[in-house]
Amino acid sequence: MSIKKYNACFLGCESEYEDADIVIFGAPFDSTTSFRPGTRFASKVMRSESFGVETYSLYQDKDLEDINVFDGGDLELIFGDPAIALDQIEEFASEVLSDNKMPFLIGGEHLVTLGTVRAVAKKYENLHIIHFDAHADLRADYLGQELSHACVMRRCWEIIGDNKIFQFGIRSGERQEFTWGKDHVYTNKFNLDHLDEVIDKLKDVPVYITIDLDILDPSIFPGTGTPEAGGIDFNTLLGGILKFTKLNNIVGMDINELSPSYDTSGVSTAVACKVLREMLLVK
Amino acid sequence: MSIKKYNACFLGCESEYEDADIVIFGAPFDSTTSFRPGTRFASKVMRSESFGVETYSLYQDKDLEDINVFDGGDLELIFGDPAIALDQIEEFASEVLSDNKMPFLIGGEHLVTLGTVRAVAKKYENLHIIHFDAHADLRADYLGQELSHACVMRRCWEIIGDNKIFQFGIRSGERQEFTWGKDHVYTNKFNLDHLDEVIDKLKDVPVYITIDLDILDPSIFPGTGTPEAGGIDFNTLLGGILKFTKLNNIVGMDINELSPSYDTSGVSTAVACKVLREMLLVK
Amino acid sequence: MSIKKYNACFLGCESEYEDADIVIFGAPFDSTTSFRPGTRFASKVMRSESFGVETYSLYQDKDLEDINVFDGGDLELIFGDPAIALDQIEEFASEVLSDNKMPFLIGGEHLVTLGTVRAVAKKYENLHIIHFDAHADLRADYLGQELSHACVMRRCWEIIGDNKIFQFGIRSGERQEFTWGKDHVYTNKFNLDHLDEVIDKLKDVPVYITIDLDILDPSIFPGTGTPEAGGIDFNTLLGGILKFTKLNNIVGMDINELSPSYDTSGVSTAVACKVLREMLLVK
Amino acid sequence: MSIKKYNACFLGCESEYEDADIVIFGAPFDSTTSFRPGTRFASKVMRSESFGVETYSLYQDKDLEDINVFDGGDLELIFGDPAIALDQIEEFASEVLSDNKMPFLIGGEHLVTLGTVRAVAKKYENLHIIHFDAHADLRADYLGQELSHACVMRRCWEIIGDNKIFQFGIRSGERQEFTWGKDHVYTNKFNLDHLDEVIDKLKDVPVYITIDLDILDPSIFPGTGTPEAGGIDFNTLLGGILKFTKLNNIVGMDINELSPSYDTSGVSTAVACKVLREMLLVK
Amino acid sequence: MSIKKYNACFLGCESEYEDADIVIFGAPFDSTTSFRPGTRFASKVMRSESFGVETYSLYQDKDLEDINVFDGGDLELIFGDPAIALDQIEEFASEVLSDNKMPFLIGGEHLVTLGTVRAVAKKYENLHIIHFDAHADLRADYLGQELSHACVMRRCWEIIGDNKIFQFGIRSGERQEFTWGKDHVYTNKFNLDHLDEVIDKLKDVPVYITIDLDILDPSIFPGTGTPEAGGIDFNTLLGGILKFTKLNNIVGMDINELSPSYDTSGVSTAVACKVLREMLLVK
Amino acid sequence: MSIKKYNACFLGCESEYEDADIVIFGAPFDSTTSFRPGTRFASKVMRSESFGVETYSLYQDKDLEDINVFDGGDLELIFGDPAIALDQIEEFASEVLSDNKMPFLIGGEHLVTLGTVRAVAKKYENLHIIHFDAHADLRADYLGQELSHACVMRRCWEIIGDNKIFQFGIRSGERQEFTWGKDHVYTNKFNLDHLDEVIDKLKDVPVYITIDLDILDPSIFPGTGTPEAGGIDFNTLLGGILKFTKLNNIVGMDINELSPSYDTSGVSTAVACKVLREMLLVK
Repeated sequence: MSIKKYNACFLGCESEYEDADIVIFGAPFDSTTSFRPGTRFASKVMRSESFGVETYSLYQDKDLEDINVFDGGDLELIFGDPAIALDQIEEFASEVLSDNKMPFLIGGEHLVTLGTVRAVAKKYENLHIIHFDAHADLRADYLGQELSHACVMRRCWEIIGDNKIFQFGIRSGERQEFTWGKDHVYTNKFNLDHLDEVIDKLKDVPVYITIDLDILDPSIFPGTGTPEAGGIDFNTLLGGILKFTKLNNIVGMDINELSPSYDTSGVSTAVACKVLREMLLVK
Repeated sequence: MSIKKYNACFLGCESEYEDADIVIFGAPFDSTTSFRPGTRFASKVMRSESFGVETYSLYQDKDLEDINVFDGGDLELIFGDPAIALDQIEEFASEVLSDNKMPFLIGGEHLVTLGTVRAVAKKYENLHIIHFDAHADLRADYLGQELSHACVMRRCWEIIGDNKIFQFGIRSGERQEFTWGKDHVYTNKFNLDHLDEVIDKLKDVPVYITIDLDILDPSIFPGTGTPEAGGIDFNTLLGGILKFTKLNNIVGMDINELSPSYDTSGVSTAVACKVLREMLLVK
Repeated sequence: MSIKKYNACFLGCESEYEDADIVIFGAPFDSTTSFRPGTRFASKVMRSESFGVETYSLYQDKDLEDINVFDGGDLELIFGDPAIALDQIEEFASEVLSDNKMPFLIGGEHLVTLGTVRAVAKKYENLHIIHFDAHADLRADYLGQELSHACVMRRCWEIIGDNKIFQFGIRSGERQEFTWGKDHVYTNKFNLDHLDEVIDKLKDVPVYITIDLDILDPSIFPGTGTPEAGGIDFNTLLGGILKFTKLNNIVGMDINELSPSYDTSGVSTAVACKVLREMLLVK
Repeated sequence: MSIKKYNACFLGCESEYEDADIVIFGAPFDSTTSFRPGTRFASKVMRSESFGVETYSLYQDKDLEDINVFDGGDLELIFGDPAIALDQIEEFASEVLSDNKMPFLIGGEHLVTLGTVRAVAKKYENLHIIHFDAHADLRADYLGQELSHACVMRRCWEIIGDNKIFQFGIRSGERQEFTWGKDHVYTNKFNLDHLDEVIDKLKDVPVYITIDLDILDPSIFPGTGTPEAGGIDFNTLLGGILKFTKLNNIVGMDINELSPSYDTSGVSTAVACKVLREMLLVK
Repeated sequence: MSIKKYNACFLGCESEYEDADIVIFGAPFDSTTSFRPGTRFASKVMRSESFGVETYSLYQDKDLEDINVFDGGDLELIFGDPAIALDQIEEFASEVLSDNKMPFLIGGEHLVTLGTVRAVAKKYENLHIIHFDAHADLRADYLGQELSHACVMRRCWEIIGDNKIFQFGIRSGERQEFTWGKDHVYTNKFNLDHLDEVIDKLKDVPVYITIDLDILDPSIFPGTGTPEAGGIDFNTLLGGILKFTKLNNIVGMDINELSPSYDTSGVSTAVACKVLREMLLVK
Repeated sequence: MSIKKYNACFLGCESEYEDADIVIFGAPFDSTTSFRPGTRFASKVMRSESFGVETYSLYQDKDLEDINVFDGGDLELIFGDPAIALDQIEEFASEVLSDNKMPFLIGGEHLVTLGTVRAVAKKYENLHIIHFDAHADLRADYLGQELSHACVMRRCWEIIGDNKIFQFGIRSGERQEFTWGKDHVYTNKFNLDHLDEVIDKLKDVPVYITIDLDILDPSIFPGTGTPEAGGIDFNTLLGGILKFTKLNNIVGMDINELSPSYDTSGVSTAVACKVLREMLLVK
């Protein structure tokens, strides 16, 4: 027996940094969450619960042990100051990108996506975003706050411009978000129906994928801040993710909005872990 | 700033009584619940959690802010005496009806429907009822108690007569309920399959709609007293509700059987709020 | 009134032993559970909650009161010694079988199936097993432990041999389980698609049915040790069970892996009770 | 091995009726509970969890296996009609008393005490009651309902008269309850301070003991309908119970107001089981 | 019957603004919470659950119905920007003070106290603060953030100066907080031992009272973000509050740090309601 | 910024192995738990939640950052085979001891203590044990199983002999345990009353300290398998721990029986973390 330092990275993500193709890291931030906070615990709890998941995917016939992923842990973010938190996320993602690795962010509330998108957009021209979500997140501001989870795709749009954002699964928002959105983003309401066409169109451009897990129906994903009934089921989400294999230039990914303490059964965390595994294996 | 009295009505239901077309009110009563009580808290918790829902419906492209709903709060009902509680509900609904507004009752156990139906049936001849539920609720009595949630549709039948009640989604009951029911009510088992035909038939008569939320599968609605697997999913229920727009004479509505404390994730309450929003917008 | 001894058997299973065709009994054992224990409480909690279910099945138009089931209670098993526990289960099942009654085991973790299968295989030559599960359970050993829930179907295979085990719904496992399994068992991944053909093939041979309830999607069955998203829904499982009526020689049954305390809503327990009722009525 | 019918009585209460000195029975009734219902599940859950308690008491150096207690199970009570439920309780208790056994009732809400007290008062003249509770329960009526948990001691007083009820631990009520109470009952506020004197005074008269478990501080007993901070701790309650050994004529006992589902940790149920054990051993 | 608008103010706080001596209001803010958020729901849930508490206090023999309290509801605060939130709180409290009423703030995280203290300190010279808490809250900054719950008493000290803050119950903090604190504030560690002397000293100066409810032991108050074992029990806290009657010039009060969703039993909320009642009656 | 590998050791236990004086390690084992399992998660959850605790102790005026503790992570133990699990624990502890560091074990069920005691007893002659617990754990066997949590102190006694074990806080067990114990171990029932004398007596001999956290009252520590009311409060336990500073030769320590999922408030885990901190600082 040889005594080793405690290590508790996400299941199967045990590469050294130098060897890694993908770097996962957590952004435990939920200060602008308007309804029920708690996403700050997502990455921690996912690591802890990931040992209930297999490294092998029967869906893709691939194993996490065959790819190289480094777990960079969680950023230490300041609560109550989104501007500084976003800077910290951007800085970390930029360093990963400059080492030619793909950043994979685990939120936190959806606002954290903005940090990674800023970093990715600096490196890749003509960036496109595929956005899975229950909510449009297209508000100009939320009670005056522009750096809010409810505005995150609007902020991303300000960086990458018109017709670069492709939303799926959207089923909730203010009327104005949709009115505005019609001229600036592509919105596939309620489901993933036109995902094939979009993927076909984006297959050679740099694509950032952001998945707000509340795109899932709350029956299978109750552990989130704003449960919104009428979402897609797990197999539909999984089917969508498997289609990402046709994208030739995925430059960044994130999943967000798991709030584990709202689901004492642990199912939501198990779902998030499985989604993470499948996304890692897709790349 | 001007300091105003605390108000915590259901989201977007802020009309004055005089201006209102619909009056929502709660009947926090569950004294005859035979398995797991707790529906008494439904209306209170729904108001409190409704601010997690949007006023705008992407499904109907309508907004609660465009219609006129008054929130009459909760009746103060006596626990342990269903006869008196039903009188109180009937009295309130009658006053609403006499002011030419539509009563919208939030239960409570399903028995409370009887109070509103009594009031509505006095005003409207030829009343029909559309009944969504997992349970037939057609018993003559339950352990000798005639004013029981398990008998509520039988009691309604005594008021409005044969072939006026149309049940959907029913998947549980005693054998005798179905034997009796065959001659007196229309029962569409398990799902909403023949709803179109029924709505077509009822489109010009006075219709009361009662939705026992346990028609939903407990995967999406675990917060109820008697969870009964095999129910419809949220989008199916929503599809059913949207069809009510074809009814020209809806004279009363209720939703019931949310028991929020059994679902610590809050999803069931969020579902009930969304159902309420869609039903209000349908009218 | 006449005062009788307390009796709390499963709903509608009140036959005397002599009169019974089926004997249900609990095996409260979870010592080898590798992730989240708690299935030891399943049978106890199911009895306690079964009074929330009807004895009548609208799906089969049959009633538990019309069949003869004896509830033998729970075995008193030693925690921490699977070999002895399995012996106790085998002994009990053997006695039931020698009295020409069918044993119906309520787990516990899936390992307990091995005890009943040993007993059944001694009595019935050419035994086949229909296995519903999320997990293949085909490992040679788990961290060196051969008597583990993760190995239970491998142990059963050692008893009954090649091409006798028919798995459905499998969506998780190690790569090696599937590699090995290809040559020894029939595995229908993800769903029940080819169940009809299998039932047709097995309709006259002795069949043991083991249902790991985690074949269900965790949306409807969160109360289990290793929730695995992407499972079948309740109506699909029910449809599968109803097909068992075509089997002419069912010689034993079990359900397992309910871990009630992970689901504070009680839905998982209600689901397990309903599955038990339908399986009892199928026989 | 010999297969026996399932039995799940309270730990160590396995006497036959004929041999028993004490008969425990449950009254699963909570229809008049004004705040949070759920005490109907207390007796069921206590039986189920009692196997986590030892039969031996280190406090009294006595063992349940040395005394004779019969578990009569739960009465099947009608929800929503307290008058009938009380009649059923009274009838059962009367039969027990006529067989010269002591009834020990497990509530349910506190109202159920009235049923047993009626039976006991018919048999024993000069009945006194020792009442442990957080609440005075002395209202004339509650929203017009006279058969309410909040009125139960007032109803008992109507049967046994002035200066026969001795309350301890009371820390909540309406002002009028205390104004009225001053002339009719003995109330020891907040704690058990004068219990010795009262026991000394009552040691040779017939005494009925009713313990509303919410006399305990909610830190140790959160599983109750109306948690009221500032109660006594467990050891103080236990000390009080041990003093009952000085009473020479205990003629009936009850404990009530456990509402197990409000305490997912199971502690409240474990506390109730331990209190029950100590009370049984005191007699 | 006359139909009135829904009102759901805190129990017994139904005065009109003009008549009120005390104005309670909620500050649902927790953006700087560093461990477990959720205090934003405290005021909402307290109102909803307050009907489980009596208006009458047996401890003080006073009734909420005899005093005049107005419930101003909850401020609508921006999440993620503590500076603006504090301005909003200060503005509201200032208006209350300018109308010669006492503000009573319900947090929210402890940072909200700073808003009210700013308003009160502008009106009253020589302001003193009595501070009940488990944590010293004296940091200069927390990860660079100066407007943090962990710094709130340091920020208050910057306004009112040395030897004006009297802390009780403190049992946690960084070493530096205590080193710094020794020269600037009075700290009574662990308990309320010297409260009498402090109250005697402050009886004629303007005093603001802030109670972080985590001064209570988590056994009785688990529903808080950072549970810290070793706190005082409820009766000790109550005893402390009753001593405030000797203060002749209480100019503001608050309670904070209830995070209701961490305590599914509801006890923590019931405790907070009872503390609020007793504090209102003390004034 | 420099990207480092994820590390999630217990708060403030970040020494390298070579520099450490104390080595903490987890034994996630609960296979013999007879009532409610779940202690296997204790060490994992404690690490994850430890960041809610301060490194500084106001009680001892010491800081974890001033001592040298290495976190060796969790052993990978086989479920369902206590003999092998104990060997693995013994092997690890032996290696730590041979490097002249003190092992500090985090259970797991109490049986794991046996592994460390075996290792310690091999190195230190005349070993004594101080044992804090609610339960005597002195059975010869439990349902035939000798390697059971209920027998652990009996097994330790077999190693170190008569009058070497000093038990405190014991309030539950079978009668035989106490009869046997009288002649072989010192048992201080219910509390820590004679701890001073024992510590005085043991101050120069090698002492192993094992704390079953269920010595605490379940009001403050509900998250355990067998809650046993009537325990000591946190400050009493803390007082006891502080007395260990007088022991000159502590050679091993453990805490055990935290079962975090039974306490959704997180308080039990926070308590365990605080106890661990104070014990580490005592050494």
